[in-house]
Amino acid sequence: MRNVSPDTITQAFADYAAKAEDARTKEVLCSLAKHLHAFVKETQLTHAEWMAGLMALTRAGEITTPERNEFILFSDLFGVSALVDMVNTPKGATNCSNLGPFHQRGAPELADGGDLWKDQPGEPMVVTGRVLDAETGEGIAGATLDLWQNADNGLYAVQDAAQPAKNYHALLRCAPDGTFAFSTTRPKSYNVPYDGPAGDMLRALGRDAWRPAHLHVIAEAAGYRPLVTELFPEGDPYLDSDAVFGVREDLVVPLGTLANGETPTHLAARDRLPERVLHAPLLIRMARA
Amino acid sequence: MRNVSPDTITQAFADYAAKAEDARTKEVLCSLAKHLHAFVKETQLTHAEWMAGLMALTRAGEITTPERNEFILFSDLFGVSALVDMVNTPKGATNCSNLGPFHQRGAPELADGGDLWKDQPGEPMVVTGRVLDAETGEGIAGATLDLWQNADNGLYAVQDAAQPAKNYHALLRCAPDGTFAFSTTRPKSYNVPYDGPAGDMLRALGRDAWRPAHLHVIAEAAGYRPLVTELFPEGDPYLDSDAVFGVREDLVVPLGTLANGETPTHLAARDRLPERVLHAPLLIRMARA
Repeated sequence: MRNVSPDTITQAFADYAAKAEDARTKEVLCSLAKHLHAFVKETQLTHAEWMAGLMALTRAGEITTPERNEFILFSDLFGVSALVDMVNTPKGATNCSNLGPFHQRGAPELADGGDLWKDQPGEPMVVTGRVLDAETGEGIAGATLDLWQNADNGLYAVQDAAQPAKNYHALLRCAPDGTFAFSTTRPKSYNVPYDGPAGDMLRALGRDAWRPAHLHVIAEAAGYRPLVTELFPEGDPYLDSDAVFGVREDLVVPLGTLANGETPTHLAARDRLPERVLHAPLLIRMARA
Repeated sequence: MRNVSPDTITQAFADYAAKAEDARTKEVLCSLAKHLHAFVKETQLTHAEWMAGLMALTRAGEITTPERNEFILFSDLFGVSALVDMVNTPKGATNCSNLGPFHQRGAPELADGGDLWKDQPGEPMVVTGRVLDAETGEGIAGATLDLWQNADNGLYAVQDAAQPAKNYHALLRCAPDGTFAFSTTRPKSYNVPYDGPAGDMLRALGRDAWRPAHLHVIAEAAGYRPLVTELFPEGDPYLDSDAVFGVREDLVVPLGTLANGETPTHLAARDRLPERVLHAPLLIRMARA
């Protein structure tokens, strides 16, 4: 249309999309256009501000590699990733939370009761838990947990040449009643990368880059929706200021201690662990597919 | 906060920005976050859709060069660029319109009455006009016009090794009464680049990539706000479907003919032009700074 105006441009975008083959694609992109238009009108965005945004995206493109995606980081820091997780969490199930950039496909298998600690530096921690049906509360047979976390220096294996490849990464098959246990170290809080345009945004907003310590989990089981989440041991100073908005109340795990002799007796590293060792009990509630 | 929810995340983003040094930066980014959140909630965006968007941005980064910025193209195709132009057009002034990616700094000077045609293929066209004060309607002394357009093959000089560098680019100083004239060829409609992720979006929406023919102008004069705009000769089949929403009614120029002997008599190429030649009369209204 030739008389496009601030009042008509959103409808003009929708009119242009009249021939879209897929109704959902049209719905999503028309909604995005509408909300971007509302943003420009609300802020009366100047050309200089518009160009600053485009240059931030351009620089994000320049800094992005297969190992480090600045667009995902922007999505995380705007809370968009967290919101997508929240709106896609089935009712009654454990909240979804950030996949993050450090997941590696093909993690080595870890027997139930196995050990990720391997006498590395850090605070040894025993994780026990159970994967449950969100509706019935009963254990799910045949569940697998894809687990990963950072080492005591705050780095994930992929960030740290000094760590063995896939250190602190594991694929664990739970017991038939859905229970599981393994030993590891307490994960550490760390900064998201702040040397790119997303870091510039944090500084411009007076925000810090800290994430509270967490254990990543992808839970899968036949007949259930896969669950990508993070679990946050209680007591971290950044639980209330996670830079990427990943914390939800049901993802905060009480951090107690396990006295020697306490279950799980099948824990492979139990005899090497301190008498009283950190203990994080997890419950993972999965929704049926 | 640890109990972030779809209802609280926008406020959480604002709370995180409480220490921002610059109030306007905070205002703009909080507004952007709010509208992105509204988009995700309205569409109940899935993880697959979210990732498709992030991969489109990632691919935009990969295809972007100093000569071709796919993020600006996305902004154009979403109507964001046009909307920024519209909200920044002062009342009574000629509408701003897309700068586009083909502007070159340091265009060669062209005397008033000068020639960009240079006997190249195409429909010779005479452009005459006047630069006016938007408030008083009087001519502005000392105005300069940075002019550029494509050649008859639809390509701008920067896109076409066969054209001389800065072909159809000129910096013209208007007469003391604000009038100006030059000869050129009628610009051609053309497709925006559609071989990247922005083109994928056009295809997904059933949209085409055509822009109606236009002449780019940056008008500058001491004491006035610079004006970046495009002028569209009437009669182009894409005037009502410009892919980048650049057309506004005051930017559509009547396209008539100029009979031999008609003004402007100082037109350098007048004796080589056809007896009756295309004529585009422009009025450019500038707002005081």
